[in-house]
Amino acid sequence: MAADLDPWSDPVELTRALCDLPSVSGDERAIADAVEGALAPLAHLEVLRDGDAVVARTRLGRERRVVIAGHLDTVPLTDPPNLPTELRDGPDGPELWGRGTVDMKGGVGVMLALAARLDAPRWDVTWVFYDHEEVASALNGLGRLVAQHPDWVQGDFAVLGEPTAGGIEGGCNGTLRVDVRVPGVTAHSARSWMGDNAIHRASEVLARLDRYEPRSVEVDGLTYREGLNAVGIRGGHATNVIPDECVVTVNYRFAPHQDPAAAEAHVREVFAGFDVVVTDAAPGARPGLDDPLAAAFVEAVLARTGGEVAPKFGWTDVARFSALGVPAVNFGPGDPLLAHKDDERCPTAQITTCFDALHFWLAS
Amino acid sequence: MAADLDPWSDPVELTRALCDLPSVSGDERAIADAVEGALAPLAHLEVLRDGDAVVARTRLGRERRVVIAGHLDTVPLTDPPNLPTELRDGPDGPELWGRGTVDMKGGVGVMLALAARLDAPRWDVTWVFYDHEEVASALNGLGRLVAQHPDWVQGDFAVLGEPTAGGIEGGCNGTLRVDVRVPGVTAHSARSWMGDNAIHRASEVLARLDRYEPRSVEVDGLTYREGLNAVGIRGGHATNVIPDECVVTVNYRFAPHQDPAAAEAHVREVFAGFDVVVTDAAPGARPGLDDPLAAAFVEAVLARTGGEVAPKFGWTDVARFSALGVPAVNFGPGDPLLAHKDDERCPTAQITTCFDALHFWLAS
Repeated sequence: MAADLDPWSDPVELTRALCDLPSVSGDERAIADAVEGALAPLAHLEVLRDGDAVVARTRLGRERRVVIAGHLDTVPLTDPPNLPTELRDGPDGPELWGRGTVDMKGGVGVMLALAARLDAPRWDVTWVFYDHEEVASALNGLGRLVAQHPDWVQGDFAVLGEPTAGGIEGGCNGTLRVDVRVPGVTAHSARSWMGDNAIHRASEVLARLDRYEPRSVEVDGLTYREGLNAVGIRGGHATNVIPDECVVTVNYRFAPHQDPAAAEAHVREVFAGFDVVVTDAAPGARPGLDDPLAAAFVEAVLARTGGEVAPKFGWTDVARFSALGVPAVNFGPGDPLLAHKDDERCPTAQITTCFDALHFWLAS
Repeated sequence: MAADLDPWSDPVELTRALCDLPSVSGDERAIADAVEGALAPLAHLEVLRDGDAVVARTRLGRERRVVIAGHLDTVPLTDPPNLPTELRDGPDGPELWGRGTVDMKGGVGVMLALAARLDAPRWDVTWVFYDHEEVASALNGLGRLVAQHPDWVQGDFAVLGEPTAGGIEGGCNGTLRVDVRVPGVTAHSARSWMGDNAIHRASEVLARLDRYEPRSVEVDGLTYREGLNAVGIRGGHATNVIPDECVVTVNYRFAPHQDPAAAEAHVREVFAGFDVVVTDAAPGARPGLDDPLAAAFVEAVLARTGGEVAPKFGWTDVARFSALGVPAVNFGPGDPLLAHKDDERCPTAQITTCFDALHFWLAS
């Protein structure tokens, strides 16, 4: 039977209750049941379910619809487990410690609290809670909804509750992964002159990476910082054999001014003369802040939070909305640098501030 | 019950029968039983057994004793298996194809045929058949005999029947293996500027390897060619993480003018500024051809085979004899470049020539 979640409780308490329902990717059944159970009794919401994704939406006939989305899964717990959550004093007030407090049950707690309270929001709202965000892209629950139930996630503007430390981060960089394969000729290492050492030849690949100066690119008024990095290298079969192949896995994080094809062309240019095989590609998302609905969101939120809009460097599911033609931003509690870390923790004030800002935007 | 081996049969037939008794390292019981069974009935030999090693020796009270040694194990078969052996026409006469024909059941066949026939050799002879040569040095059967039964393998001169294509190869290079560890600072690859990429920093290690000019060193009249090679490289944990370590595994094959400590000092000099960890070291062996017994061997064998003495580049178990103070050379049928290969094969003429040369040396 489903655990009880009270959507009327304080968003910090809700966050805590959500974290204390562990939901490592692939094991989201219990938390999805709990979220569905909390929303189903609310008369102003239509609740839909697909696998371990839960969608709840108002049907007020408003002119425009906003989508607010967050994932239910987390990366694995630490060993020993960093759950149940603990409330500790931090330098700027109380902090909630434990897996998911940053990525991203703070955002989910805010969403759940607002979904209950906003029975007559300014625009129709679709709340999307989904599974499998922290694992291979092919498993992603939001991707599954986009493919199988596009009408469930359609809207005019989307907010993804990923951690931004309560700031607004627009769009996201794209990501491309390639293998740069360097061939050689095998030989026994006692007679190495009979072979051609692929690892030695990969020296040039690493030298180009080491010399590479990553670019910063302005897109729609935000400056996106790029990166080109080896994230893996492998070569060699046995300790007495000259290796006949060395493979350098390279990750290019590219600004959203270019699409994956252009990013691939750039990487091929950098590694000219070497065999480059693309193994993964995901487009970025332009910030899209010229849309009036986005502008209204920014104005309302900044009125409560201060600060200014920043670019998002990490790839997030905003790109999935972008692919549907829905402008999207990231906005949620928690320092993204603490996501997935052993000392994952979130100041409770950020949860409250995000709740207040979204409430102000949607209720006014 | 043990397979039958007839030590009186022709050395080519014996080689074939030995190959057709598969004996991948760790699985030498059947072949050791067969070798022991073939030698035990011979009145002129004392036969000893330790694990899957078999030692047979004459006790004629000769002034000097020679040791002739070979390993019984092979590397794994191909898939599909390259056994039973096949006799095929080659460019220079018949060839025996299949696992072990080169490394080194040709040598073992020659030894077994001679052990039966030489009941009154010129010097006392110890025949050593041992296990576990193709795997970790700690398992090596000859090493075990040296440690546990040094009197079984003691002598004044040793011949190791490893493949040399019927030439005499003196001594051997030493081998040193090190890990060169390059540290970095981890970060998410979307914010790579917060980290320090260990793989990029390993560029300098590979550049030094690529620039390195291996030396050739003359020792006791033979010229040993060295080699310094990356045999492995690894780095990176996940495709979205800046790696905090890159490890380059380097194998240094060094001429026998220096010991492992001197070889280590050289490698540390090459990689100055980097963390170098020694993971394996084995001394080389000087050719030792100034010993009169060795000189007599060379004279007798070259009288039958022609050619001249060459250095051995690969590390072999001659170094184990060298460590006991016993000069040792490599001499056996089969092209060492075909050892461990899918197309492993040996001209039968080489088996016959090695048999004749050793017989001429020991019987005359």
